[in-house]
Amino acid sequence: MLATVLHGPRDVRYEHVDEPKILKPTDAIIKLSATCICGSDLWPYRGLQPMNGPARMGHEYCGVVVEVGSEVKTVKPGQFVVGSFCLSDNTCPHCSYGFQSSCVQREFMSGAQAPYARIPLADGTLVPTATMPSDDLIPSLLAVSDVLGTGWYAADAARVQPGSTVVVVGDGAVGLMGVLAARQMGAGRIIAMSRHKQRQELALEYGATDIVTERGDAGVAQIRALTKDVGADSVLECVGTQESMQQAIRSARPGSMIGYVGVPHGVELDGQSLFFSQIGMLGGPAPVRRFLPQLMDLVRSRAINPGKVFDLDLPLADVAEGYRAMDERRAIKTLLRV
Amino acid sequence: MLATVLHGPRDVRYEHVDEPKILKPTDAIIKLSATCICGSDLWPYRGLQPMNGPARMGHEYCGVVVEVGSEVKTVKPGQFVVGSFCLSDNTCPHCSYGFQSSCVQREFMSGAQAPYARIPLADGTLVPTATMPSDDLIPSLLAVSDVLGTGWYAADAARVQPGSTVVVVGDGAVGLMGVLAARQMGAGRIIAMSRHKQRQELALEYGATDIVTERGDAGVAQIRALTKDVGADSVLECVGTQESMQQAIRSARPGSMIGYVGVPHGVELDGQSLFFSQIGMLGGPAPVRRFLPQLMDLVRSRAINPGKVFDLDLPLADVAEGYRAMDERRAIKTLLRV
Repeated sequence: MLATVLHGPRDVRYEHVDEPKILKPTDAIIKLSATCICGSDLWPYRGLQPMNGPARMGHEYCGVVVEVGSEVKTVKPGQFVVGSFCLSDNTCPHCSYGFQSSCVQREFMSGAQAPYARIPLADGTLVPTATMPSDDLIPSLLAVSDVLGTGWYAADAARVQPGSTVVVVGDGAVGLMGVLAARQMGAGRIIAMSRHKQRQELALEYGATDIVTERGDAGVAQIRALTKDVGADSVLECVGTQESMQQAIRSARPGSMIGYVGVPHGVELDGQSLFFSQIGMLGGPAPVRRFLPQLMDLVRSRAINPGKVFDLDLPLADVAEGYRAMDERRAIKTLLRV
Repeated sequence: MLATVLHGPRDVRYEHVDEPKILKPTDAIIKLSATCICGSDLWPYRGLQPMNGPARMGHEYCGVVVEVGSEVKTVKPGQFVVGSFCLSDNTCPHCSYGFQSSCVQREFMSGAQAPYARIPLADGTLVPTATMPSDDLIPSLLAVSDVLGTGWYAADAARVQPGSTVVVVGDGAVGLMGVLAARQMGAGRIIAMSRHKQRQELALEYGATDIVTERGDAGVAQIRALTKDVGADSVLECVGTQESMQQAIRSARPGSMIGYVGVPHGVELDGQSLFFSQIGMLGGPAPVRRFLPQLMDLVRSRAINPGKVFDLDLPLADVAEGYRAMDERRAIKTLLRV
């Protein structure tokens, strides 16, 4: 089959690869309904993350099961499924505490920017729907797999409560999903930090009540002004740079929580500063599996429309253009039709 | 009056100082019933913290009000009071969220190793008792002022729940109080890391179920063995060094919380490591004021006996010996009788 391979910085190829096969009795093979490009794919694409040779790309997926290994019990061929970008057995102690992204058998999904994909740990990872979803819901169901699940986790880790004041640092797709999540959790005020008009509009549509365009000291001053000099109850850090983390810390009130889901690149925290800021932090790869059933239900009942975050819709064959568009910030997030 | 002044490393003098006076209408003056030496006093004592000239020492206190400023409404001369080492107005937004140690008017108490002390922000800081407590309760009421309140906050920040597995890093007085707090909050298992026999015994008396004497890799291996390779639900970090913080992080399970109350000295956290460990953290100077009424009640009803953490009882005039004994680890914590 033809699928996506990253050969080096900015060298994405849609080329022949072997079709996936069942390798372990706990595997499933799915035919993808759609896939997409993640902001985190841009780290290696931009050469900012070391690579060990050509890499099969893609970790966000939904689709129809075509084959299962001999030990798979909970999904079967013909079912539509969504899974997390973190593969997990969903039975180990960490899974049972709701942190499936730290499963003792955890693997990270790869190779999903393709027509077919192998899903290890299928029973623990995949959640089937009772009936085949309508086509127009596919983008939103795909979003659950990572970008929505990750934004949701940011809000959950930041302990967003009904009525609370939330700051979202980062207006990428995850940040926008963080706005959506905070709204669903009942936040009273949601301040989105964004300098891009199109993203601001989507943030407002997803429930942001305020937009802050400044960054650094000026951004902090704006947050202070909006919160009567108190700071936010919850901050969602959805970027992963030293600058964004400092923005998050300086936007938060003492006793608040930062949920950080941007994979930190070059972030160093000084223990004593963090201590005296008295700000709590919880981050990590999102345990999307914990949220999958709830989020899939919200999508299927059309209570939420996370799929709107895809503002570029391309056939999989044009995946290289999809990367370029996101790299150049012409697109927030690229949907790839299989 | 004669009081405690630190002139430089290991140079504690009991010498003449001016008696405290009401300087602001929100001040109170108390006659101390007892005071004590804090583990954090050892940082400047050991020359590990910069000083700007001679410093009046002591921030833990309880005693009888002798005078109040014209605006003080909630305490009056003759009342027995306990206050936090953090002075706070108890009305600002941070106070109302229960983080009085980040009060917008916060000051840190000083000069309490003395017969008399000035307490700024008396209304927000001091909690009176309805009647004069009996003498034998004075050490435990004094402990509430910082060491117990701080250990309690560590357990609160680490979100200790009924039945949870707790690791306490640090067997100083705060760590021992953390054990007491975790027991009061219903922890199912409390693993105290301690290499000192006397402290181990007190930890067991306060509710520890297990003692781990190893540190570093061996200590982590022991925690893993005791928790079936899962890690703890909550970790109380009560030291403040890079080594102890790493011990805490490596003892915690993904999704757990570390409550850290040892003032970090030289602690640096790598964002990406913390991210992938998926461990939550909340620290800071303890908002003791939030806990004062509850903890004073627990002491007065004799449900807890935190005063037992004082294993050296000296007249205030012998304060220099009190510092020496703690510095040389001959004493866990020194009570000073006024």
